Amino acid sequence: MRTRPLKVALLGCGVVGSEVARIMTTHADDLAARIGAPVELAGVAVRRPSRVREGIDPGLVTTDATALVKRGDIDVVVEVIGGIEPARTLITTAFEHGASVVSANKALLAQDGAALHAAAEEHGRDLYYEAAVAGAIPLIRPLRESLAGDKINRVMGIVNGTTNFILDKMDSTGAGYQEALDEATALGYAEADPTADVEAFDAAAKAAILAGIAFHTRVRLDDVYREGMTEVTAADFASARGMGCTIKLLAICERAADGGSVTARVHPAMIPLTHPLASVRGAYNAVFVESDAAGQLMFYGPGAGGAPTASAVLGDLVAVCRNKLGGATGPGASAYTQLPVSPMGEVVTRYHISLDVADKPGVLAQVATVFAEHGVSIDTVRQSGKDGEASLVVVTHRASDASLAGTVEALRSLDTVRGVASIMRVEGE
Amino acid sequence: MRTRPLKVALLGCGVVGSEVARIMTTHADDLAARIGAPVELAGVAVRRPSRVREGIDPGLVTTDATALVKRGDIDVVVEVIGGIEPARTLITTAFEHGASVVSANKALLAQDGAALHAAAEEHGRDLYYEAAVAGAIPLIRPLRESLAGDKINRVMGIVNGTTNFILDKMDSTGAGYQEALDEATALGYAEADPTADVEAFDAAAKAAILAGIAFHTRVRLDDVYREGMTEVTAADFASARGMGCTIKLLAICERAADGGSVTARVHPAMIPLTHPLASVRGAYNAVFVESDAAGQLMFYGPGAGGAPTASAVLGDLVAVCRNKLGGATGPGASAYTQLPVSPMGEVVTRYHISLDVADKPGVLAQVATVFAEHGVSIDTVRQSGKDGEASLVVVTHRASDASLAGTVEALRSLDTVRGVASIMRVEGE
Repeated sequence: MRTRPLKVALLGCGVVGSEVARIMTTHADDLAARIGAPVELAGVAVRRPSRVREGIDPGLVTTDATALVKRGDIDVVVEVIGGIEPARTLITTAFEHGASVVSANKALLAQDGAALHAAAEEHGRDLYYEAAVAGAIPLIRPLRESLAGDKINRVMGIVNGTTNFILDKMDSTGAGYQEALDEATALGYAEADPTADVEAFDAAAKAAILAGIAFHTRVRLDDVYREGMTEVTAADFASARGMGCTIKLLAICERAADGGSVTARVHPAMIPLTHPLASVRGAYNAVFVESDAAGQLMFYGPGAGGAPTASAVLGDLVAVCRNKLGGATGPGASAYTQLPVSPMGEVVTRYHISLDVADKPGVLAQVATVFAEHGVSIDTVRQSGKDGEASLVVVTHRASDASLAGTVEALRSLDTVRGVASIMRVEGE
Repeated sequence: MRTRPLKVALLGCGVVGSEVARIMTTHADDLAARIGAPVELAGVAVRRPSRVREGIDPGLVTTDATALVKRGDIDVVVEVIGGIEPARTLITTAFEHGASVVSANKALLAQDGAALHAAAEEHGRDLYYEAAVAGAIPLIRPLRESLAGDKINRVMGIVNGTTNFILDKMDSTGAGYQEALDEATALGYAEADPTADVEAFDAAAKAAILAGIAFHTRVRLDDVYREGMTEVTAADFASARGMGCTIKLLAICERAADGGSVTARVHPAMIPLTHPLASVRGAYNAVFVESDAAGQLMFYGPGAGGAPTASAVLGDLVAVCRNKLGGATGPGASAYTQLPVSPMGEVVTRYHISLDVADKPGVLAQVATVFAEHGVSIDTVRQSGKDGEASLVVVTHRASDASLAGTVEALRSLDTVRGVASIMRVEGE
């Protein structure tokens, strides 16, 4: 084994960073044996140096992250500060000064992944980021490497633990959204400002990363259709149960049937209780992958948290260090298919629509005519009413999102339709 | 991209091999883009050249596998013939003549993995075998690479599709073992001679491979405790259901609580219906991994079949080709912990024991005394009887297998115990 240690700079020392530092110390011998050389924490850049960081030599702590990545003797930079800047500039500076990078930064990778990969390649460095998607679950490496000889057609997953906790709570207790969110906040599963989670910005970033890797093309955050889960109601769960379904916030990346384009989207959806994703409880994540040869695979585990995320970071750190010792780099980004990303309107799926309608004869015929005129075929209709109020629940066959949107717009203009109570996509069948 | 192709020799052209050859042809452009150079099928060694192999140039087919691997211009040998010889000699000969190897050969890897890895390392070649365990499910790469910075404590999985199909059938229909086996055979899930599957030789080989990788030590096939599932009865399933459990054939690799040794075993066991492995149906496989930092992960997918296994082989082929182009090798075997493998007697778990006993007063007291004398603590007892016959079902707390074996031996010598109807371990709690 080489005795000169590989030097690691840690950018950020919050929940994940401090766990990375801790494991690098407590498991130093194991890491050295697995890498083939010792690894040494050479510097830790933080914003607030006064905070006590147990187990970290205060002499390593600095507020000057730029100087740290420019030192020139750093082999690997571990970036766990998150956000776009200064992370982006620090990563490219690290590449320029000889370091490879391990990052957990989903927002940055989703927005600027292509440019960062290009910078890594230009300088002959590695850019690894298993921790950016689904925490500890090995997902990027399996998609990029294990399935490198296969053709992936769909990636569908629960990639946000906060929203899965909330939806699971609503499903199991009958609670409404706000009540379930309050519990998630109290238990530490939701942040004080839960917007990034509940409005699905977090999941959309992960969908962009997954789609790009799965289909070997470039998918930007803006390409991902995004719909949060704040409007899911207890009534929606009751409807779902009536169909033998539950509701999950799903990230879905699909290759079009003709193979000529891809789509990426994040929204709440009904899925059958028999689908493996339906039984993913609490804050767990799981990703279901369908490919030509392998068939159906699922990867399941904790999607967040300091220790699980640190596990993913350290797995990457070992790989990057091994590459460095071997004078090689791992597989980089691959966007050779250049498949375009189609807009949401071209996505084809099924829909569950609840309408509040006037309780009088002929309403169903009127509604059915609107669906037919827009080319959306109805699978089932359930009609119920009393006291002059009535509701219609329509479940469609597969139709394009654009056709469905046109249908809904036309329904809203009908005098007999008082309101569209909910529209939910039905997936996983 | 490099234009000179990498040359691949295929040893064996059965269900898996022909699928590998087919995908290499139909997906040639994708493979080239992902590798960075085209790959060319340079030769196919088979036993019976007369069999028509659709889509394979007859000029590539040979019966002289040794000459093929000795050609000197072969970059990668794909070994899908299975069994110990001639596979072992062909693989080492390939290393000597400049080729890296991708293998799906679990029996050989379990028996001679250490020697083969040493030979690969000696010659600076790669030895990859994702397809040897759990078919298409990415498992070896996640364990070896994604979790390289973590400490794995337990790997517990369903790694044989044939037996899972049989047990699932028994569970869902109430069928006996023979009836379920007959159906598995009729549907092609079981071979004419099902011994390797139902006596758990296949699963034991996989357990040896997984344990070695998970714990970075050497685990030989002989180190794995093995118990088949031919004696599981419909009555066992009824007992399991009464406990809120089902029965699975599990491969379990564990680090001892003190960290100083490991165990590996394969046997039928009861697991709670709430455990993720309980819902793995049909011929699917799934492996549950517990580690210090990542927590609980699960990997799920098809465990066998031509196309799924080919997917795993081709993922390895892409990785090995990339390594070759980069002048590097991937992570090899790692046995640095040198942890000893403890015998089955030291495994600690819970037990479900059914006894046929005389229906007279004092039997329970006698039986309970035997358990106590052997240091096995009883969790629950259920007693039932009629017409002078009675049964006792005992579920224990955690105890060593040796203590349980001693208990059972002593129970058999009691006059009042007419027979030990079944003993089943209880896992996953």
